[in-house]
Amino acid sequence: MDEWRGYTPAMIRLAEEFGRLPGIGRKTAERLTYHILKSSREDALRLATAIREVKEKVRACRECCNIAEEDLCAICADPRRDRSQLCVVEQPRDVLALEASGSYRGLYHVLMGHLNPLEGVEPEHLTIAALVERVRRGGVREVILATNPNLEGDATALFLTRELRPLGVRLTRLARGLPTGSSLEYASPNILADALSGRREIDAETTP
Amino acid sequence: MDEWRGYTPAMIRLAEEFGRLPGIGRKTAERLTYHILKSSREDALRLATAIREVKEKVRACRECCNIAEEDLCAICADPRRDRSQLCVVEQPRDVLALEASGSYRGLYHVLMGHLNPLEGVEPEHLTIAALVERVRRGGVREVILATNPNLEGDATALFLTRELRPLGVRLTRLARGLPTGSSLEYASPNILADALSGRREIDAETTP
Repeated sequence: MDEWRGYTPAMIRLAEEFGRLPGIGRKTAERLTYHILKSSREDALRLATAIREVKEKVRACRECCNIAEEDLCAICADPRRDRSQLCVVEQPRDVLALEASGSYRGLYHVLMGHLNPLEGVEPEHLTIAALVERVRRGGVREVILATNPNLEGDATALFLTRELRPLGVRLTRLARGLPTGSSLEYASPNILADALSGRREIDAETTP
Repeated sequence: MDEWRGYTPAMIRLAEEFGRLPGIGRKTAERLTYHILKSSREDALRLATAIREVKEKVRACRECCNIAEEDLCAICADPRRDRSQLCVVEQPRDVLALEASGSYRGLYHVLMGHLNPLEGVEPEHLTIAALVERVRRGGVREVILATNPNLEGDATALFLTRELRPLGVRLTRLARGLPTGSSLEYASPNILADALSGRREIDAETTP
């Protein structure tokens, strides 16, 4: 409280709320609070309203659990998407990252996390039942398991593999290896191990 | 709009509002938007409410124009402050900076800016008339001109010197321990303490 000496109570409350946001330190919270104080009433209330509306309007897509404001997200509602492919990701941001690559035209399924028994995240806390039900309904030929390439992501992919294998669908996992644009000398032993074990034949078709 | 592909309209609006804040770039705005999306409804609405309340509750002190939530700011309302000294600053943040130095026990007067004829800021846009009236009312022995040590601040101090000189009050200016060209709000408490203790008389010879 004393560190905010000279501030009014409403300003202290706002500075504290700003300071709770990720990556916003004390100085930035102070600067943002002053900005709100000096900005027009309309500008400030537009930000307050935008925060409120995200909490009120944004929900999970009924099909894939991606972010949506309608019953279906923009991708599930798009008739041009290939409905025979499902790409399973951990969170909505992963959908954006894959969309930005421009390399995928199928649908998604967002798990809303990854399995982590130590932190109490069990299969029933993710959208796994909905994924199994989607595949069971038919029409899906391939499920791409695009969980993160780390311990939890791999454990989640392994669990999904066991759940989906009996349904006779093609299961794939994103390729692992050296990130494009990186240097071999800075790659970790695990990355190099992946890159070696996943090495591909060089033939006429795959030569760049 | 296309750069926000995959976002819902409410999220785009919020990311754009965050992006309007000073020092918040596109990536940070995106991160903050996701944070709001994932945080609890209570946490998000507390931030929205805090923004709204700053605009609704914070106003100018009737006496010194510093930020206040009552008729008088905390400093003007404090009976222990020395009412014979007025320290004239450009903005409320300067009051906080001087208070943090712990070297001043008088009152303040916040101009709410500095003279800048090129940008159309004339004396009537600042609280100069209220300052002159305050000094004319009597009881003030010294006015410390603590405008920023830069071109606009100096011009403002010069103007104030001409306005206040006829009132027979002691006029001082903060010592030039402050690096010219900087801003008062970023000066350390020690620099400000030095500047306060080294303040000089404004007389015919030192008037710029």
